Amino acid sequence: MEYRKIKDEDKDGGDTIAGDVESSPPKYPSGTLSAFGGSPIGRNKWKRKSIVTIALTFLTSSQAILIVWSKRAGKYEYSVTTANFLVEALKCALSLAALVRIWSNDGITDDNRLSTTWEEVSVYPVPAALYLIKNLLQYYIFAYVDAPGYQILKNLNIISTGVLYRIILKKKLSEIQWAAFILLCAGCTTAQLNPTSDRVLQTPLQGWVMAIVMALLSGFAGVYTEAIIKKRPSRNINVQNFWLYIFGMGFNAIAIVVQDFDAVVNKGFFHGYSLITTLMILNHALSGIAVSMVMKYADNIVKVYSTSVAMLLTAVVSVFLFGFHLSLAFFLGSIVLSVSIYLHSVGKVQR
Amino acid sequence: MEYRKIKDEDKDGGDTIAGDVESSPPKYPSGTLSAFGGSPIGRNKWKRKSIVTIALTFLTSSQAILIVWSKRAGKYEYSVTTANFLVEALKCALSLAALVRIWSNDGITDDNRLSTTWEEVSVYPVPAALYLIKNLLQYYIFAYVDAPGYQILKNLNIISTGVLYRIILKKKLSEIQWAAFILLCAGCTTAQLNPTSDRVLQTPLQGWVMAIVMALLSGFAGVYTEAIIKKRPSRNINVQNFWLYIFGMGFNAIAIVVQDFDAVVNKGFFHGYSLITTLMILNHALSGIAVSMVMKYADNIVKVYSTSVAMLLTAVVSVFLFGFHLSLAFFLGSIVLSVSIYLHSVGKVQR
Repeated sequence: MEYRKIKDEDKDGGDTIAGDVESSPPKYPSGTLSAFGGSPIGRNKWKRKSIVTIALTFLTSSQAILIVWSKRAGKYEYSVTTANFLVEALKCALSLAALVRIWSNDGITDDNRLSTTWEEVSVYPVPAALYLIKNLLQYYIFAYVDAPGYQILKNLNIISTGVLYRIILKKKLSEIQWAAFILLCAGCTTAQLNPTSDRVLQTPLQGWVMAIVMALLSGFAGVYTEAIIKKRPSRNINVQNFWLYIFGMGFNAIAIVVQDFDAVVNKGFFHGYSLITTLMILNHALSGIAVSMVMKYADNIVKVYSTSVAMLLTAVVSVFLFGFHLSLAFFLGSIVLSVSIYLHSVGKVQR
Repeated sequence: MEYRKIKDEDKDGGDTIAGDVESSPPKYPSGTLSAFGGSPIGRNKWKRKSIVTIALTFLTSSQAILIVWSKRAGKYEYSVTTANFLVEALKCALSLAALVRIWSNDGITDDNRLSTTWEEVSVYPVPAALYLIKNLLQYYIFAYVDAPGYQILKNLNIISTGVLYRIILKKKLSEIQWAAFILLCAGCTTAQLNPTSDRVLQTPLQGWVMAIVMALLSGFAGVYTEAIIKKRPSRNINVQNFWLYIFGMGFNAIAIVVQDFDAVVNKGFFHGYSLITTLMILNHALSGIAVSMVMKYADNIVKVYSTSVAMLLTAVVSVFLFGFHLSLAFFLGSIVLSVSIYLHSVGKVQR
């Protein structure tokens, strides 16, 4: 079970060597048993972890399919900033709805009350701010790489997440799990290869630097979110999500004003919205909540694996939906990715 | 140390379950120590194994470079069958020369005498015959796949060698080593990807069947050679090589008569021979001897890794020699291959 309280002193970045010593939860006697949770509590945790991971995989996969669908249906006519704002608002509303149900069932406790301290809430804007910076950089990187090249470079996220997960959360991966992580990155990239991919090798230095900075920002945002959520393991996830998404709404409101103020005033907030747009907003909101759940009950490593598998699923489903052809590179990448997943689980048992 | 006497009863294919039990040589206390050979004898064996493996890697790599060079220099004008015959003859001569030196130093013993029993020598024609059948099939497979496609399909050899190594030699690979072997195959294929590779997916069923049969023939020939050579561990490798190559000469003499008799009679045996041809023959002969040495002192798995690394080396050297460009797929394949080598060695220590 990866779930573990992140001690406050860990975050001060004091003694790194002390952090190296595995302070993992009680060891289970047998590998297989521990994988499925030895105790009933362990089994429940494992079940919850599996459900959120599978949900994230399918939501991410259908997200990509909706994007392909919307591209085929024509260009985006709605403003992206308003859609992003609605995604955050919907996530906020869903978290609040879940909380209202919990309050009526269990009553209000210290763990599920919405009111909070400045100390607890002060870290919540950080991930939203990081994603904002990353999204702004995204406009500039296209001066150096084309869109397929950017898709390839985005796989650097995998490595940056692994490295930051190790450094910031001080969680150890076994050597085999590191090997698996490198394979995951190589496998995903291989699966996405297309005849124009080689152009990415001609990316100028500035492009590489930006890609690495973006990967670090995105990795840091993910790992930081996990740190925030796991810092208070007993705190209800819906409260944590509420505060996370409130700041998301705020940052996206600023983005609307800065980027699309005129369009919204002249054409209206919902101009260009269609059935697909609505489905995409719904899907993004649910995926976002699934990501938070994975951070709470699993970790960033599981998230990365989940989204990688989603990429394969999307491609396979696209064969049936859109008549896509799978390339030899896709098959090879899928094999490498499958072996990576196997090694990740084997590496865990052996450490 | 992989080196182990293959018991005669093993070859009867009697009790497979008994064969599953690892009957490996004495375990060394520490992983690192055992990798470098704990005892002086172990260290010597490890050294010999390393030298023959490195020699094979460099010889195979330069072999491919000579082929590229000869292609650039123009078409083959010499008859391939005479060249193959000369390779076998040269290997035979080199083995004999080594034996003469050994005889003058150590005297003639039971292990290094050339005379043999029918029982010992009867199995030696088998690998040569298998390679002959495989080479004949090679002409027919091009009715179903193009040359780059055949290069891709040849990577099936890796899997067939692993499977036959397990079945025939009854040597166990750990689960991680199997994972590494699948990665080796995927990595080599990825490194060889080019814009036309996807065509291999349209290979008709007959093409796939032939490719698999050829992979099995080639894998079987390799594993069978290892079985022959290791059956008598104390027998001098040069004697074993001599008998192996004598039959190789015989089969290639038949091939000359069948395929190139007229050309040889009319134009002469050495028609079209150039400096490159001579270098290629020399290289093939030395590589052949290196393969036998690897079979004696290491195994087929090491051979497969060695030739895979040679493939990468060839590509890198070709960048400098012929101005080749390395593709993104090549880099990804190299990463996967490197991780595979790492996992193979880690998997060994842990079993």
